[in-house]
Amino acid sequence: MSYQLLSKTFYRLAQLDHANAMLSWDQQVMMPPKSNKARGRAMAELSVLGAEILQAPDLADAFAAASDRQDLLADWQRANLREMRLDWQRACAIPKDLVAAEAMATNDCEHAWRQMRRDNNWHDFEPLLQTVFDLAKEKAQALRGALQDERGYSNDYDALLDIFDPGTRMSRIDPVFAELKTELPGLLQQITDRQNSQPALIRQAQPVAKARQIELARELMRILGFDFSAGRLDEAGHPFSGGVSEDSRITTRYDENNVIEGLMGIIHETGHARYEAGLPEAWRHQPVGRSMGMGVHESQSLFFEMQLGRCKAFIDAIAPKIAQHLGQEPAFGADNMLRLYTHVEPGLIRVNADEVTYPLHVLLRYELERDLILGTARVQDIPARWNQAMYGYLGLNTEGNYRDGPMQDIHWPSGAIGYFPSYTLGAMNAAQLHAALQVDIPNAPALIGALDLEPIFSWLSSKVWQQGRSLGYDELMIQATGETLNSAHFLAHIRGRYL
Amino acid sequence: MSYQLLSKTFYRLAQLDHANAMLSWDQQVMMPPKSNKARGRAMAELSVLGAEILQAPDLADAFAAASDRQDLLADWQRANLREMRLDWQRACAIPKDLVAAEAMATNDCEHAWRQMRRDNNWHDFEPLLQTVFDLAKEKAQALRGALQDERGYSNDYDALLDIFDPGTRMSRIDPVFAELKTELPGLLQQITDRQNSQPALIRQAQPVAKARQIELARELMRILGFDFSAGRLDEAGHPFSGGVSEDSRITTRYDENNVIEGLMGIIHETGHARYEAGLPEAWRHQPVGRSMGMGVHESQSLFFEMQLGRCKAFIDAIAPKIAQHLGQEPAFGADNMLRLYTHVEPGLIRVNADEVTYPLHVLLRYELERDLILGTARVQDIPARWNQAMYGYLGLNTEGNYRDGPMQDIHWPSGAIGYFPSYTLGAMNAAQLHAALQVDIPNAPALIGALDLEPIFSWLSSKVWQQGRSLGYDELMIQATGETLNSAHFLAHIRGRYL
Repeated sequence: MSYQLLSKTFYRLAQLDHANAMLSWDQQVMMPPKSNKARGRAMAELSVLGAEILQAPDLADAFAAASDRQDLLADWQRANLREMRLDWQRACAIPKDLVAAEAMATNDCEHAWRQMRRDNNWHDFEPLLQTVFDLAKEKAQALRGALQDERGYSNDYDALLDIFDPGTRMSRIDPVFAELKTELPGLLQQITDRQNSQPALIRQAQPVAKARQIELARELMRILGFDFSAGRLDEAGHPFSGGVSEDSRITTRYDENNVIEGLMGIIHETGHARYEAGLPEAWRHQPVGRSMGMGVHESQSLFFEMQLGRCKAFIDAIAPKIAQHLGQEPAFGADNMLRLYTHVEPGLIRVNADEVTYPLHVLLRYELERDLILGTARVQDIPARWNQAMYGYLGLNTEGNYRDGPMQDIHWPSGAIGYFPSYTLGAMNAAQLHAALQVDIPNAPALIGALDLEPIFSWLSSKVWQQGRSLGYDELMIQATGETLNSAHFLAHIRGRYL
Repeated sequence: MSYQLLSKTFYRLAQLDHANAMLSWDQQVMMPPKSNKARGRAMAELSVLGAEILQAPDLADAFAAASDRQDLLADWQRANLREMRLDWQRACAIPKDLVAAEAMATNDCEHAWRQMRRDNNWHDFEPLLQTVFDLAKEKAQALRGALQDERGYSNDYDALLDIFDPGTRMSRIDPVFAELKTELPGLLQQITDRQNSQPALIRQAQPVAKARQIELARELMRILGFDFSAGRLDEAGHPFSGGVSEDSRITTRYDENNVIEGLMGIIHETGHARYEAGLPEAWRHQPVGRSMGMGVHESQSLFFEMQLGRCKAFIDAIAPKIAQHLGQEPAFGADNMLRLYTHVEPGLIRVNADEVTYPLHVLLRYELERDLILGTARVQDIPARWNQAMYGYLGLNTEGNYRDGPMQDIHWPSGAIGYFPSYTLGAMNAAQLHAALQVDIPNAPALIGALDLEPIFSWLSSKVWQQGRSLGYDELMIQATGETLNSAHFLAHIRGRYL
């Protein structure tokens, strides 16, 4: 009975999550600007309500009783109990006032960021971001205090990493990132030297109206299995994938003069959406039915974007459709598009980065946010540290350009501190999954060439989507690929595609 | 302290209302069809959560203590306590399971109605509607059982009327509606005879693209003081005004061949939105800061639409803007538009009805839903009763045409039973307020002619919007107009405008 009580409680929390997911989507896509304070209050209150539901005194007894009688539970129920327990421990560790303060501070900071970024206004942004980091630190300390032994945290930052990507610790990231830090600069040099010796790329010549871009985007999404009767495509300043499993809400932005760039963003978000929609229906509204951490989530979006979307067979197959929607232009020829989609060039903006320089953007952010949480850097140091790292990793000068520097990302203003490493872990997971797929489905390239993608999605579904959170990250990777995270696959992928 | 505890609880409930209002807007405007089950579950859970918050055992003590020490409270606090207490009593009267069952049943019925109405499918709709009426009856009985003495209910239907329009009872409606039933058929005959002797109306000749209609709609809304930085205009199958005070969401539908009709719908919804946005800011998120019942709410939308929007001075003033946006057409001449906007003709559809026949549509629905709740009619009787009344009141045959008959309204499928009388009470309130305005602001017609509407909105604001729920309905009307509801103003308005 205690398991049933817990399961009912988490069903209720999932409904609050549904509400918050939709309010957040609306806030970013539909909400008029003056309504933000009211929205912030409503969302903060839902968060506090969720925390209170988890802090109810009778839950402790229920967890104790359910844990004592795990023999009564089936495997997925046991896994569900484990996930419920972690949520509960986290909620009990964080004081209610801190939940509300964090919700309000991130709401304010994110809202202000939208305008301040446009204005390149670091000066007024800094104190808002300071508050967000202060509260994140406080939260990290509270979580570490409560969970250090059980979850094996070595420091406060581990407690934040563990929120976004359960199981990830600094000790796991550091050697992998160190390898990238060693390998990538040399690879980057080789790749750009090689690409610079090739004929010039052809860029889009004529602007393409938004309406035509939307038609094309929708066709590509359908090819990728997106179900428009259970989801939407809209516009947002910062593209994201939101909503709930039963209602995928992905967003993009349209640039009439650079359609090519935006399409990959849509393919990326479609990967996120299909993962969410493909989670096990029998476990919907229960923690074990949720997606794995963000490192796996990004592996799905990056599988769609990098492994599938930027491969030659796929681009050859969609080129006629692109020409049909956008018009015949030299830029939209299959060979040129492949070159555009695999062009490597250091740039200031992470979301526009190619897959070779992308990890260096992540490295910069990881080192900064880690030091901020561990207390070895201050918010006021961010611009200088940013400039220094951009110069060191990519040879670029970003001084005084806050807009395209430390103010470019939504993550910190919205409180997502400890998230960035997921992008690079995701890229490595994606490469590893793709290598395993090629063994399991040797004719994958032919299927892709025919846009007969269902066998590939079925493989992803059985290996990842349908697993929910029933397995730990390491077990998931072993089950899908035969081994735990192995960065060799990512480096092999880069070498194979670019050299 | 007990008042503060209550006030904090109701602040929390207001945040749940914010979430539900936005989820409901999204459901009607944005949500893809397959997501409805999940949305219904989430909204039902928020409703149950709200009910549980109100049913918490410590609230009874807080209400007792706060009521004992009302001498410590200022006037608005006392009024707030009164409103909180009524919400609380209602919540305690309705079992939690009934709250959930009603939320799910109305969600299912409303969702099914959208398609079944298109298909003219009464057969499959009837059992869903039966469930909605069964649950409404159960709720009415529970509310009457708990509140009969204190609120003076004479029957179950009174308990439902009181939800939508606090203070309204059958005993108040019956004499007023009886007067309309006596007066209107004769007036209708006189008016249509008179209009039939006039030259034919000129209808719109050329279709007008939606984008141009939207531009015009936005300009009219701005003239009416709508703030687009705190609100939106979108499309929905059934136009409504939703959202929250800080975020007005109004909707409309666009007909390229009948622009004139849609514009008045927008003016109507703008009236609702301005009332909500104009509620006292100091009392936001507290029951006393909410709008009065729907009879007053409809008085504001109908003041905008009927008293202001369809008067000659206003139409003369906006005619040049209409021509500018829609093109020069004989139909859009000021004189012809005035005739279109005051054309009286019996029709099947309530929302398209003129202000003379509208009350007869309401009468039909009132008599039917009242008898259904009181047990003297059954859901299966609805089509026959509908046909009979349409023929008796308006001389129209609606047999077999469920789509434009008993399936035309969203109210019953969505559980809004007891709502319809508010439309006609609202029309009467609006006429009475308008008569008082003309005394207080004698140059109102000149102001309208110059589209200098701020003095009129200020008057509405001070008399109605800024009052929130601090007064009872009778006191509000006395304070604004010097008397309680007096149907003579409505009949005088009809005679003055149409004869």
